Amino acid sequence: MKRFMNSPDKYIDEMLEGILKAHPNRLRSVTEDRRAIVRREAPIQNKVGIATGGGSGHLPIFMGYVGRGLLDGAAIGNIFSSPNPSQMLAVTKAIHGGKGVLYLYGNYDGDIWNFDLAAELADAMGIRVESIRVADDVASAPKHDQDKRRGIAGLFFAYKVAGAKAMSEAGLDEVVQTTKKALAGIRSMGVALSSCSLPAVGTPIFTIGDNEMEIGMGIHGEPGIERRELLSADEVTEIVLTKILEDLPYRSGSEVAVLVNGLGATPKEELYIIFNRVFDLLHMRGIRVFRSYVGEFATSLEMAGCSITLMLLDAELKALLAAPASTPFFCQGHDY
Amino acid sequence: MKRFMNSPDKYIDEMLEGILKAHPNRLRSVTEDRRAIVRREAPIQNKVGIATGGGSGHLPIFMGYVGRGLLDGAAIGNIFSSPNPSQMLAVTKAIHGGKGVLYLYGNYDGDIWNFDLAAELADAMGIRVESIRVADDVASAPKHDQDKRRGIAGLFFAYKVAGAKAMSEAGLDEVVQTTKKALAGIRSMGVALSSCSLPAVGTPIFTIGDNEMEIGMGIHGEPGIERRELLSADEVTEIVLTKILEDLPYRSGSEVAVLVNGLGATPKEELYIIFNRVFDLLHMRGIRVFRSYVGEFATSLEMAGCSITLMLLDAELKALLAAPASTPFFCQGHDY
Repeated sequence: MKRFMNSPDKYIDEMLEGILKAHPNRLRSVTEDRRAIVRREAPIQNKVGIATGGGSGHLPIFMGYVGRGLLDGAAIGNIFSSPNPSQMLAVTKAIHGGKGVLYLYGNYDGDIWNFDLAAELADAMGIRVESIRVADDVASAPKHDQDKRRGIAGLFFAYKVAGAKAMSEAGLDEVVQTTKKALAGIRSMGVALSSCSLPAVGTPIFTIGDNEMEIGMGIHGEPGIERRELLSADEVTEIVLTKILEDLPYRSGSEVAVLVNGLGATPKEELYIIFNRVFDLLHMRGIRVFRSYVGEFATSLEMAGCSITLMLLDAELKALLAAPASTPFFCQGHDY
Repeated sequence: MKRFMNSPDKYIDEMLEGILKAHPNRLRSVTEDRRAIVRREAPIQNKVGIATGGGSGHLPIFMGYVGRGLLDGAAIGNIFSSPNPSQMLAVTKAIHGGKGVLYLYGNYDGDIWNFDLAAELADAMGIRVESIRVADDVASAPKHDQDKRRGIAGLFFAYKVAGAKAMSEAGLDEVVQTTKKALAGIRSMGVALSSCSLPAVGTPIFTIGDNEMEIGMGIHGEPGIERRELLSADEVTEIVLTKILEDLPYRSGSEVAVLVNGLGATPKEELYIIFNRVFDLLHMRGIRVFRSYVGEFATSLEMAGCSITLMLLDAELKALLAAPASTPFFCQGHDY
């Protein structure tokens, strides 16, 4: 696989240097290794701090959502690898504004291990930390085992809700409660058309036939639930959306937010072809689309494919979703 | 090439339906075929209208920049094909707010032919139209023949300047003058690592070896100036940036805006690795970076590769570049 890099061992460092040079008024590093990135203005006094973290290779996830109305900081790991506890602790200390810190991240073993340890260390320093793991991928475990599900693009909706809630002067318990309410109604599922490769290896992380797709594929190449011949966009959309809708009582009269997310190499043109079908299928079921997001929100390097995410809304969640936000990778104004 | 579609002949229609359903409060179509897209609130009285247009397959170019602080409308062609004069005329009529309309688009024969005809038809209806063709790709013709150059990602900077200028209550002549001043200092060049394929054909539009890159490749697969073995990200960046810097007097003390644009399949991580080197090379020459844009601004379906664009700035252009703007594909707040 051809890619723009100098050497695999400099990939993350040079990416981070580039991000910090491109956005010096908005982001800064609080460690020498640049693996702990926070908002320029952190800590913000009397605001709950929100930290995330995870492996690299998923931009804008994770650090792309550090900014106004969203997150306060992110710990950055190597490609598809968890950051370590000291990186997360450095973020925590830098963003703590006196009201505690929420760790909001994807449900992966390495991250849980490292961030739980960071939370203990923070606690010992007098910083209260609460943790919420996003587990939105319905393909990754059955409903009765949903605590084992992986976190994928639904992270974006979780960040948006938590970030806006924290702007409202809410305390840590309130931010936790509202974010958990949102997560109870967030479901995602993906489909991959091609693999990505790791910069250090250079060969695809999985193989897939020239006319095949993998339904339910994870963003690190974790196996999906079915491999089959590539179907039409409408058929693929119906398969994925049906799985999502079966998992939750999205009923006629429900209002939802929709995210059609590109995994890396899929053109935006095709994400909108998929969105077009999502919208129609929801409309047929009497489900109203309050807001739509289409683009690259959680990627897997140069993987071709997409995921669909729904979030069930109530009045509070609608207001939080609609609140303005601005980071170097995401911006939403009052006029949406 | 695998892709999400239903059939090639529905590709553009379904994409447009999806875009209009996703952004109903911001965009609307003024023709039955949906190939003439304007801002929801068009026409805006007493503002110069700005129209663009071109072939599909380059999102966010072209219609992605229709919105507040940017463009008023776009005519949409088939993949890599110009829209027709009646589509551009429909845009023109819908966005004319009494102060005339600027056509701002890439320097391609088909577009020139069709948009010149639309301008004549508009003129006959009493709508004054001025046209500016963006020809920023230094690889596509030598400096002494720069009127033959193609328009690529520099379109974004041209849109941003013209759109902000039109917001200032400027007349058509002033908008034209300022946009031309910006274009005199905008230069771009690209490099491709892989081809894209046309939905209707399914095979790559050009072939390139497993360890090759094409320097100066156009966004429709037009041949570049050199094909050679893939070099390191730093070496590629230096080759491209040197060509750009040679073409214009970007001197020590100059201030520039930088755009590192992904062509479709290249991860954002790698665009920042390239930006990192661009920044350092400019710094070494004493050129100051005022603002940086890194991401997908002008794509070529699923092509892997990138382009670098510089825009030379003065005080007026800095203010216009920094002005807030918001479309479904691009948003920039007061806090940047």
